Amino acid sequence: MTTETAPAAGPATTAPAAPVWSTDPRTGERRAQVAVEARPSDVDRAVRAAAGAAHALADRPRRAALLRAAADHLEGAADEVIAAADAESALGAPRLAGELARTTYQLREFAAIVEEGGYLDVVIDHADPALGRPDLRRIRTGLGVVAVFAASNFPLAFSVPGGDTASALAAGCPVVVKAHPDHPATAELCTRLLRAAAASAGLPEDVVSLVHGFDAGLALVRHALTAAVGFTGSVRGGRALHDIAAARPRPIPFHGELGSLNPVVVTPAAAAGRAAEIGAGLAASFTLGNGQFCVKPGLVLTPAAGTGAGELEKAVVEAAGRAPAAPLLDSRMRVAFLSGVRERAALAGVEELLAAAEEPTATAPLAVRPGVLAVPAALLAADGPHALLLEECFGPVTVLARYRDQAELAAVLARLDGNLTATVQFAADERGEDAAALLRGLVPLAGRIVVDGWPTGVAVAPAMHHGGPYPASTSTSTSVGAGAIARWLRPVSYQAVPQELLPAELHDDNPLGVPRRVDGHPQPGRSR
Amino acid sequence: MTTETAPAAGPATTAPAAPVWSTDPRTGERRAQVAVEARPSDVDRAVRAAAGAAHALADRPRRAALLRAAADHLEGAADEVIAAADAESALGAPRLAGELARTTYQLREFAAIVEEGGYLDVVIDHADPALGRPDLRRIRTGLGVVAVFAASNFPLAFSVPGGDTASALAAGCPVVVKAHPDHPATAELCTRLLRAAAASAGLPEDVVSLVHGFDAGLALVRHALTAAVGFTGSVRGGRALHDIAAARPRPIPFHGELGSLNPVVVTPAAAAGRAAEIGAGLAASFTLGNGQFCVKPGLVLTPAAGTGAGELEKAVVEAAGRAPAAPLLDSRMRVAFLSGVRERAALAGVEELLAAAEEPTATAPLAVRPGVLAVPAALLAADGPHALLLEECFGPVTVLARYRDQAELAAVLARLDGNLTATVQFAADERGEDAAALLRGLVPLAGRIVVDGWPTGVAVAPAMHHGGPYPASTSTSTSVGAGAIARWLRPVSYQAVPQELLPAELHDDNPLGVPRRVDGHPQPGRSR
Repeated sequence: MTTETAPAAGPATTAPAAPVWSTDPRTGERRAQVAVEARPSDVDRAVRAAAGAAHALADRPRRAALLRAAADHLEGAADEVIAAADAESALGAPRLAGELARTTYQLREFAAIVEEGGYLDVVIDHADPALGRPDLRRIRTGLGVVAVFAASNFPLAFSVPGGDTASALAAGCPVVVKAHPDHPATAELCTRLLRAAAASAGLPEDVVSLVHGFDAGLALVRHALTAAVGFTGSVRGGRALHDIAAARPRPIPFHGELGSLNPVVVTPAAAAGRAAEIGAGLAASFTLGNGQFCVKPGLVLTPAAGTGAGELEKAVVEAAGRAPAAPLLDSRMRVAFLSGVRERAALAGVEELLAAAEEPTATAPLAVRPGVLAVPAALLAADGPHALLLEECFGPVTVLARYRDQAELAAVLARLDGNLTATVQFAADERGEDAAALLRGLVPLAGRIVVDGWPTGVAVAPAMHHGGPYPASTSTSTSVGAGAIARWLRPVSYQAVPQELLPAELHDDNPLGVPRRVDGHPQPGRSR
Repeated sequence: MTTETAPAAGPATTAPAAPVWSTDPRTGERRAQVAVEARPSDVDRAVRAAAGAAHALADRPRRAALLRAAADHLEGAADEVIAAADAESALGAPRLAGELARTTYQLREFAAIVEEGGYLDVVIDHADPALGRPDLRRIRTGLGVVAVFAASNFPLAFSVPGGDTASALAAGCPVVVKAHPDHPATAELCTRLLRAAAASAGLPEDVVSLVHGFDAGLALVRHALTAAVGFTGSVRGGRALHDIAAARPRPIPFHGELGSLNPVVVTPAAAAGRAAEIGAGLAASFTLGNGQFCVKPGLVLTPAAGTGAGELEKAVVEAAGRAPAAPLLDSRMRVAFLSGVRERAALAGVEELLAAAEEPTATAPLAVRPGVLAVPAALLAADGPHALLLEECFGPVTVLARYRDQAELAAVLARLDGNLTATVQFAADERGEDAAALLRGLVPLAGRIVVDGWPTGVAVAPAMHHGGPYPASTSTSTSVGAGAIARWLRPVSYQAVPQELLPAELHDDNPLGVPRRVDGHPQPGRSR
């Protein structure tokens, strides 16, 4: 590649690398030093080693074995993994056990996907002399080294052993993970387990490696051999990395999930019929995981008046008020949450129905309790300081925007950026054109439309799409489910290539039994 | 969208807009003024009108009718269209008749694709209470207004009525085309025909519109309502637009095809066995369309010595020397071609086997004849001025890089950027591991691997991939074939949405007969 060079290794120095500490989010106290930050030379070494391991990953059965071994190794060390993640995230053992189960499920699902081969999207068109068409055979190939940025709020399922890593390995792409600073010890432990899994599958350990440190993340995105990036995190951080990826001499795909308000619309009829149920459901959804899910409903458009309007608000506040105080993922987020709520509550016209605040508990001096704000929707319909209420505030808080009529509702929706989800609470008899039009109006705003439910709880299912217009995502891809593998692949066509020189998946006799489309006709593969 | 505003309409002015001239590439003389450049307010008007027409395009049968009507209207005006394109491109009536046929074929293919509905990629997972899974149904939806930049070298098939426009309309996206300055009259004519086709299909004419002018192109990419860009052109121009698209407050997908060297490797055994055939084939390929195809073979790695080496070079030069002189697409390209060849020929160690030069003909005073350069491959294996030979030189010239051994061959391949294609000429008995390894080594360099053929002549077939690593493409998409529609779509999932409120394609009884995957099982659609 003539247009790029690897980052310089930096001046030779004997200064020690910066230490990386594991911190207890319940107390804010340092637990232990678990690593050092990667210097540019370390990042360079990790990426080159990963690139060197790519050839071995081309073997599909071995990749599947790696993914299954990774799940096995994580389960074998489940107690240790869950304890490490809980110590650094305060998410609690039950949630983390569930997250580990999701993580191993994803790894095994991708193993099955790799073996089945449908993701290769094989198309074969035999030569057609009448049309002057040569023999053409298309398959997908991995892009190369994938940089994965671990997410704060999923120390397992969206971190070292998470969906980005699983899908990239499934695609045949070696992975270098940038650890999230909130859980470096968990990251180190999971990396050791994944590398051991690689060795057990007869693959080089360097198919997965780990770097720590902000600057290491930048160097990783800039590295000439990095071929794509997966990111889950803040709009500010994600946008900065997106811009670096786009400005490289050779730009690379940046699949980022940056931020989402996840608006909810409650129709007057829904409020009239199900106020208590909706209020309780909303409280459960926005306080789940202490409000630290990317699909937390952060803005709820509710009727300003009419039957149920007051009851709904009362139900939200009561249920949220009963939610136990809990720590946030780190002290920085705690400060941002508390100041973010304060700043929003201080806006003219905003009522604080339930005051988010510090609430130290015996085990978690840094715990907080949730908050509920309310504001006239009309204040959100124009430029001005109230636009802040249309930005995500990470943590257990939601904003009720009271609309007086459909025009106010529409005016607020027109001001929203892209979202992962948009939700409507209808009454049981709202099934006509007005309801359909409301849903159609939400489609440009979101990647998932939810009716009469809540956006939290992202099912891992083939029909799931987890992504949405910017800033929800920086691409049109999904980061959850089988489709996530497509982010790390590109098509290659083979023209008039003799059988002996084709990848086996493209041979006429289909020795590997992958599903294919041949001369326009789908051919099922060997079933899994 | 709170973070963006439409471009300002600019200061009120009475200064006339800049004229847009149609120019004869055979003589360099102005033919007529055919339009004026679009001012920012004109671009704003065009994009808003397009956005306003999006709702009407949501009707799939009507979209299919539009695409068929477009093909019909183009055919109905074929003589006029071909004459207009020839007058502005000098590509000749036979080639342009073929290009028109390809264009109408594409339009009708996309009509069939829209009707069949497989591109919607519908997946339905019914609720699974045991797994706690809600009902989920996924479909694809159009992104919004697509900006299409017309290509110089395909005044029809990659311009106003070309593949980008056809695929975007098929996806339900209105299109604003930025005309190529080489063929403004053709662009105006084709836009009139497409708008008439829209009207005949009962759609607003604004589903397609046209703007002229460099600044209009920039404004188009920057417009808040522009949702994606399709571009075919130079690395410099495409990269500038790519960077603008990425730097927007809300970045948008930029599907650009920028440049490709299209390397060819001739093995020693191939040269020994088929020197004359390979030489003649190469000459035909690099002079086809006067060397103005994006898949022109621009670098040919040939054995420096051994049986056939000299004969191959002689055959290329003889055949290329017999190719008729012809004009290039415009005067700027002519100057760039001639100076590009001169600059390359002047490099130390470069031999000019056939001198590209001006060669006025009776009908085309600006015609040029093709050139062939040769250079020791070793000179391309290191940084330095010879890196110029690894950059595309648009027009009828190719560079033979003479390699003495496999190490030199590998060293040159290691320095190549991404390409649309990579080609190998083998001997009939080269089917072993060395040959397979050579092909494997080319996969990271290209989107299409060709054996014993030539990269020119891009078949429109399901297995075709037209794209490649940067700078061949700025994304992993294809711009030719059915897959091109995916560039303008994003998935949306519907969660627990009642039947009555779902798009018809997602109803349980599948009233529109689209192919779907339901609870893991593929369901064929109604056949076309």
